[in-house]
Amino acid sequence: MTEKIILGIDPGTNIMGYGLILIKGNSPELIKMDVIKLNKIENQPLKLKKIFETTLELIDFHKPDEFSIEAPFYGKNIQSMLKLGRAQGVAIAAALYRSIPVFEYSPRKIKQSITGNGNASKEQVAYMLMNLLKIKEAPKYFDATDGLALAVCHYFQKGAQENKKAYSGWKSFLAENPERKA
Amino acid sequence: MTEKIILGIDPGTNIMGYGLILIKGNSPELIKMDVIKLNKIENQPLKLKKIFETTLELIDFHKPDEFSIEAPFYGKNIQSMLKLGRAQGVAIAAALYRSIPVFEYSPRKIKQSITGNGNASKEQVAYMLMNLLKIKEAPKYFDATDGLALAVCHYFQKGAQENKKAYSGWKSFLAENPERKA
Repeated sequence: MTEKIILGIDPGTNIMGYGLILIKGNSPELIKMDVIKLNKIENQPLKLKKIFETTLELIDFHKPDEFSIEAPFYGKNIQSMLKLGRAQGVAIAAALYRSIPVFEYSPRKIKQSITGNGNASKEQVAYMLMNLLKIKEAPKYFDATDGLALAVCHYFQKGAQENKKAYSGWKSFLAENPERKA
Repeated sequence: MTEKIILGIDPGTNIMGYGLILIKGNSPELIKMDVIKLNKIENQPLKLKKIFETTLELIDFHKPDEFSIEAPFYGKNIQSMLKLGRAQGVAIAAALYRSIPVFEYSPRKIKQSITGNGNASKEQVAYMLMNLLKIKEAPKYFDATDGLALAVCHYFQKGAQENKKAYSGWKSFLAENPERKA
């Protein structure tokens, strides 16, 4: 039976959520979900450092096969979008550095794939995840389920191979896209 | 005579500029400036990978002591700010990963420290840099001088030690900020 581990990361300015699932054959199991609080780290550069190091630690400890993160979307505030971009950038860099393929999903896609409704609330997403993964106790922060939702969304979407947006090392990229060889 | 190498990186969506200077005693010398073209790389993830890898290669080859990048600023387009943030994030991650202290300067500060005018044009900045570093031939792209300007701005600003925004490993951070020890 093939096994696969997926890491979902939701990095923010004040809190970073993550979730890890193990896919055994066709059923997903929760490995871990948690948050890293960044609000007490006093400047943005040190927050970026924390996100980078934590992501690298999670990768080195759990050895995920695939990495899932939110796709670029339109936010409301330009300054906060630049900060969010930087936070995502360092998390993506950690995955790229370890040659873990990175997949991106829009917030709407994530909600839809888990609840069937692209406009579902965070509570609905959390409830569905708890049900699916037989989690007894609700996590303290929705950021943890946001990270977990990214991992589970990728598990659901991976079936639709032809729609995926994957990137990792050139080697695996070319292996998966033989027509793109220069 | 103390020597120091400064790397300035200006990562963008279509082109990434960089400049390296060597400070010998009190005078700066150009080591190298150039651009990496990203416009032919077809998707943003692979551009990020290229920025991350190039920055890491520059660091490993030239072994800079300090790293300089543009500070967050208000741009016009939210989507492009998220992309710019991601590009900056992966470059910063490469520096953090090699424990190179990272310094940030606003576009206005960069122009002012090099030309004396915070609203100087790219042409004026390039002209001053060529004069200062005795560069005979103008570079083909202003992105190269933008990267170089970051390195030179850091060299000029480093005198004002108390105003600096530095971050790198916790160890060096605490060494430079002993009052912050937890």
